[in-house]
Amino acid sequence: MENREEIVNLADLALLAGGQVDGDPGVFITGVCSLDHPRHGCIALAVDNAKIAWGPGQDEPSALIVSKRPAGIDLPLLVHPNPRLAFTIALRHLYPVPELPEGISPLATIHDDADVDASVRIAPFTMIEAGTKVGPGVQIWPGCYVGRNSEIGEGTKIYPNVVVMHDVTIGRNCILQPGVVIGSDGFGYTPTEKGNMKVPQIGRVIIGDEVEIGANTTIDRATLDATIIADDVKIDNLVQLAHNVKVGRHTRIAAQAGLSGRVQIEDNVVIAGQAGFQNGITVGEGSVIAGRAGVIGDVPANSRMSGMPARDHRKALRIIALQNRLPEILDRLEKIEKRIADKTIES
Amino acid sequence: MENREEIVNLADLALLAGGQVDGDPGVFITGVCSLDHPRHGCIALAVDNAKIAWGPGQDEPSALIVSKRPAGIDLPLLVHPNPRLAFTIALRHLYPVPELPEGISPLATIHDDADVDASVRIAPFTMIEAGTKVGPGVQIWPGCYVGRNSEIGEGTKIYPNVVVMHDVTIGRNCILQPGVVIGSDGFGYTPTEKGNMKVPQIGRVIIGDEVEIGANTTIDRATLDATIIADDVKIDNLVQLAHNVKVGRHTRIAAQAGLSGRVQIEDNVVIAGQAGFQNGITVGEGSVIAGRAGVIGDVPANSRMSGMPARDHRKALRIIALQNRLPEILDRLEKIEKRIADKTIES
Amino acid sequence: MENREEIVNLADLALLAGGQVDGDPGVFITGVCSLDHPRHGCIALAVDNAKIAWGPGQDEPSALIVSKRPAGIDLPLLVHPNPRLAFTIALRHLYPVPELPEGISPLATIHDDADVDASVRIAPFTMIEAGTKVGPGVQIWPGCYVGRNSEIGEGTKIYPNVVVMHDVTIGRNCILQPGVVIGSDGFGYTPTEKGNMKVPQIGRVIIGDEVEIGANTTIDRATLDATIIADDVKIDNLVQLAHNVKVGRHTRIAAQAGLSGRVQIEDNVVIAGQAGFQNGITVGEGSVIAGRAGVIGDVPANSRMSGMPARDHRKALRIIALQNRLPEILDRLEKIEKRIADKTIES
Repeated sequence: MENREEIVNLADLALLAGGQVDGDPGVFITGVCSLDHPRHGCIALAVDNAKIAWGPGQDEPSALIVSKRPAGIDLPLLVHPNPRLAFTIALRHLYPVPELPEGISPLATIHDDADVDASVRIAPFTMIEAGTKVGPGVQIWPGCYVGRNSEIGEGTKIYPNVVVMHDVTIGRNCILQPGVVIGSDGFGYTPTEKGNMKVPQIGRVIIGDEVEIGANTTIDRATLDATIIADDVKIDNLVQLAHNVKVGRHTRIAAQAGLSGRVQIEDNVVIAGQAGFQNGITVGEGSVIAGRAGVIGDVPANSRMSGMPARDHRKALRIIALQNRLPEILDRLEKIEKRIADKTIES
Repeated sequence: MENREEIVNLADLALLAGGQVDGDPGVFITGVCSLDHPRHGCIALAVDNAKIAWGPGQDEPSALIVSKRPAGIDLPLLVHPNPRLAFTIALRHLYPVPELPEGISPLATIHDDADVDASVRIAPFTMIEAGTKVGPGVQIWPGCYVGRNSEIGEGTKIYPNVVVMHDVTIGRNCILQPGVVIGSDGFGYTPTEKGNMKVPQIGRVIIGDEVEIGANTTIDRATLDATIIADDVKIDNLVQLAHNVKVGRHTRIAAQAGLSGRVQIEDNVVIAGQAGFQNGITVGEGSVIAGRAGVIGDVPANSRMSGMPARDHRKALRIIALQNRLPEILDRLEKIEKRIADKTIES
Repeated sequence: MENREEIVNLADLALLAGGQVDGDPGVFITGVCSLDHPRHGCIALAVDNAKIAWGPGQDEPSALIVSKRPAGIDLPLLVHPNPRLAFTIALRHLYPVPELPEGISPLATIHDDADVDASVRIAPFTMIEAGTKVGPGVQIWPGCYVGRNSEIGEGTKIYPNVVVMHDVTIGRNCILQPGVVIGSDGFGYTPTEKGNMKVPQIGRVIIGDEVEIGANTTIDRATLDATIIADDVKIDNLVQLAHNVKVGRHTRIAAQAGLSGRVQIEDNVVIAGQAGFQNGITVGEGSVIAGRAGVIGDVPANSRMSGMPARDHRKALRIIALQNRLPEILDRLEKIEKRIADKTIES
């Protein structure tokens, strides 16, 4: 991505990030680079114990973001107690977010009864249905659909080919990555003699502010009431959130995780990739669920769970270690049996 | 979702559902609500032993659907031996299914050689290719693509951004949730010295009647012959059905399950979320496959399988219990060893 | 799929595939069929020990592709040391690849500053942004989006509803199945007191030549630098490749596998379905990762790994076998304990 073509110096950046300069405060910083691909004019993050060395023919970066001066390095530094935060602030300052051009494309289809703010940007091949409200500064990219009686909050960005069905409320400053589906029907059938009778899914989806949802993730509407995603929840790609799920504030859910119907995740939970959660369970606040964990019961607050079925992480590690020792355990058992048998023969 | 603004009374609803009224048969019912969010005018499902209590300031519902009168409750009742069925029938009666407006949008692209019934509804930005037949009452929402020589049966609804490639047959009264892909190429390559040579995937996909397919689910065409989904199969979101898979009638497949090439699932199977199935295996009718099960061999009819690798569920539970006891087992083994060693030293 | 309506005889096909004819070299071959659904005029692959028998009323195929003449079969044969390769070559010769009609649809939106070759075919409802280069012979199907400053190499085919975001480079002769998303933001946030601060994802995606990507698969851009998919990589449906992943040449990744951030997969690796890979690990070249394996550490070259956590496959099998014997192991332990206890009492 091009940067803003804005030039700041190291002192400006340190002030912005709340850090200190060690070295030339006037060095110009025009971008952010990695230690692997350093570029002149850029600042790079060097976490503690990072390998800092440039190959032959490689540029040096113009400055580093560090928590303390690395041995043998005399580059100008932005010193910050939380270097990753300073790095994030530098990226946010130096690089623009991709934007749609202003206005509503004549190739978009907006229903006359939709309430679309004058500042909204809408790309071609996108359709907005009746009764839907689209707030100030919203950007809706090509190929999207927003169904009836939905609401998109101020500043939210909806990337290409996203589907938001009817009766969905999305808060402010959210980001929907491409291919997201919100408000698909929950998976509900009543068995009858003639087969599966579909249970109409008449509930809603309510999504808070500052929520980001990853590419091709699906969020089903509730059977009754609402599927609820609270403020500042971050969801990765290809995640499944079923009907009536509730996710608490600040929770992060990594790719391909799956939450079955009525699962409740409380605030500040971290869920790693491909984890799965059985119908109706609750995960207490502050818990950490490891990748591929299969959670089949309620989880108390501040737990750390892993494995299938998910257990307390320390217990899971102990069990894995003992599984690895099963051949040895069997050997030892057989030795004892032999010894006892020998004794029997002897005696 | 708005309801039909149709007003029925409890007696009408009981008649429709095949249940009995206990209490005022004339009470008006305008919608369905949950016990958590009761609303005046609505009827709520109360399964056996459900907690029935309204908070301060909450409405009471106007009636309940139950199997028998709950203690301490004097609301009018719809009593039914299968309350969930009565609840489903009430929902289906009181709430309309979302519908497209009539007609074919001038912003849709329909090939002259497509055979589209006069009653079909097609939204903007959808394309139908040559040789494809679209039956009476079909609704195709925005952003869809239907390839050549395919067929969409009467009454089927295709929600936004669905892709149906060429040579795909879809039966009657199916529902395709947003983002579904049907007829993508199967994953087949022949290794050569120069790399992976693609095996053309020239087969079809055949989908029966009353099939529902969840958001962003993918169904590959067959290499030769056909991938076949029988009548009344219900598939959740983000499911993968590979080339030449066959799924039998009434089977339900929950989210993120994955069926590898040539897997055969017989009738009336229930597959829970994130389960996986190895190439070419068969799962016998009436079986239940637990969430995250990894099925690596044929499964006899009426089995219940869980775990990775999937085992008979009772055996899997026994093994999990013994895994939890591995620390204890090792302790006991060590005690015996120590005792024998002591004896040896003593003797 | 219709075939080319081209007629070859068995001798032509054998010459093309580098095999020998055994039987009538002049028999006409107009298509390829399976042994399950044989058709007159078609050639079928019969792998060693395949069951070759036609039901009543079934056609016989006109020839078989085999490694040696099967007992009791007198059909004309194409004999080849690698029959699957000959089968693939026959399919590729006899069946056309689906093609868009020539030209750029007036219903597509191409930015004036996009560099689109005169031979490119673009369907309706597709949008190409400024600064993007689309090479000769590229086909982009309906409902696609290609963002700014991206590049699509010669001969690449992009099926419907694919999203390619900005700063993505795709090589020559690639195939993107429907619903693919490339260049979505990596999942990166810096925790702050106020919540999750998004780390701008300013890196690119670089995809080599001859790469195929399955339906609804997602590939995130890098935080810095690039997510890199090398030549001849084949990726199945619903796969997640996170930011800064690198995948080496000829590697195949089956459906629903998930590679976390910074995972490196070397050349010629085979990854089966639903496998998962923890952040930053490396899988050595030539390795085979089994279905549902959970890889949590670096894997040496030419390894075969399975299970959760992934272990050397032989070790994993041994552990599974011993898990199955846990009830027996506990029994034997208890017998010893009882015996020792009895002895104690006796003595």
